[in-house]
Amino acid sequence: MSQKGILAVVSGFSGAGKGTLMKELLKQHADQYALSISATTRSPRVGEEHGREYFFVSKEEFEEMIGQDALIEHACYVGNYYGTPKSYVLEQMEAGRDVILEIEIQGALNVKKKFPDTLLLFVTPPSAGELERRLRGRGTETEDVIRDRLKRAVEEAEYMDQYDYILVNDDLDACVASMHELIQSQHGKTSQNLEFIAEMKQELKQL
Amino acid sequence: MSQKGILAVVSGFSGAGKGTLMKELLKQHADQYALSISATTRSPRVGEEHGREYFFVSKEEFEEMIGQDALIEHACYVGNYYGTPKSYVLEQMEAGRDVILEIEIQGALNVKKKFPDTLLLFVTPPSAGELERRLRGRGTETEDVIRDRLKRAVEEAEYMDQYDYILVNDDLDACVASMHELIQSQHGKTSQNLEFIAEMKQELKQL
Repeated sequence: MSQKGILAVVSGFSGAGKGTLMKELLKQHADQYALSISATTRSPRVGEEHGREYFFVSKEEFEEMIGQDALIEHACYVGNYYGTPKSYVLEQMEAGRDVILEIEIQGALNVKKKFPDTLLLFVTPPSAGELERRLRGRGTETEDVIRDRLKRAVEEAEYMDQYDYILVNDDLDACVASMHELIQSQHGKTSQNLEFIAEMKQELKQL
Repeated sequence: MSQKGILAVVSGFSGAGKGTLMKELLKQHADQYALSISATTRSPRVGEEHGREYFFVSKEEFEEMIGQDALIEHACYVGNYYGTPKSYVLEQMEAGRDVILEIEIQGALNVKKKFPDTLLLFVTPPSAGELERRLRGRGTETEDVIRDRLKRAVEEAEYMDQYDYILVNDDLDACVASMHELIQSQHGKTSQNLEFIAEMKQELKQL
């Protein structure tokens, strides 16, 4: 089967549990996955580290990256740039690791345009009611922030149809397992195995 | 997630181990899968039973089925008709069972045309050399039959690219597991979850 890594993009509602999901997936299969770290021009928040949550760069540096075609995708969101450095992603894929990008919808769709083999995953709670419960359950956000996230969820839901797969995050362990199986199954995709197919054709003719 | 069954079509080289694979998959997950039985006008071979290997019908009966649009697909192969009865497949899918058709390439591509959501799987040994070894290893076929199957494999390989996934049958248990995971992961496909997405959009707006 294909030795080249899969590119998987994960998006989903705030409150869907993407973060925990990714953390668990990478913990369970540290050898298999590489998590791409985005570059951004926004300021680091308390506790965030350069090179861990994001590569924090200046607007000038970011625009230089754009000019050098060093980003797979980039998007502007709430007045700041966000983008995915290309070299890391391609290197990891060449090395056979599956690369996961956790990015916003606009960026996700741009990646898919550029790399049609990208696996687009949309993570959602089992219902809208459950999404609201989770956002409120955190107990750390103001009512304004919650209303804002729910309003954004309405907008984001409009793009769900454009993703390849919907991952319902009801039970964390089950969802991690599904996500892993889904990404791994992509190694069998025909488009990932064109070399194998070409060799098989060649060899069969020589028998 | 989607409660509707998946339609999976399995094709592959003679000698790839499709038969054993399907038998094992159905044994391990009897509740989940339904194997569609084809209708054919060819004569039953020793040990074959009507309704188990095939529905053996006359040419007139088969053509009546075509006329009544009672077949998902049909093809003519070595002078005999082969086809997939529609009602069984649709009933099983409605009941939430994943239906597997083991059919020839021509039929497989016809099913995909009619039902674009069909999962097309092509089963192959890890190499052409291994295919030959397996065909010879059976020890039951004449050299002519073996040459004929290898010649057919050359022709069939030309269509591998048109399948969705390539399943390399190297280790039986691993291949059964991959096949199961692959088919199950299709329940998360966006096209299988349009109702869920529509409900989610609706509910989010009402929060």
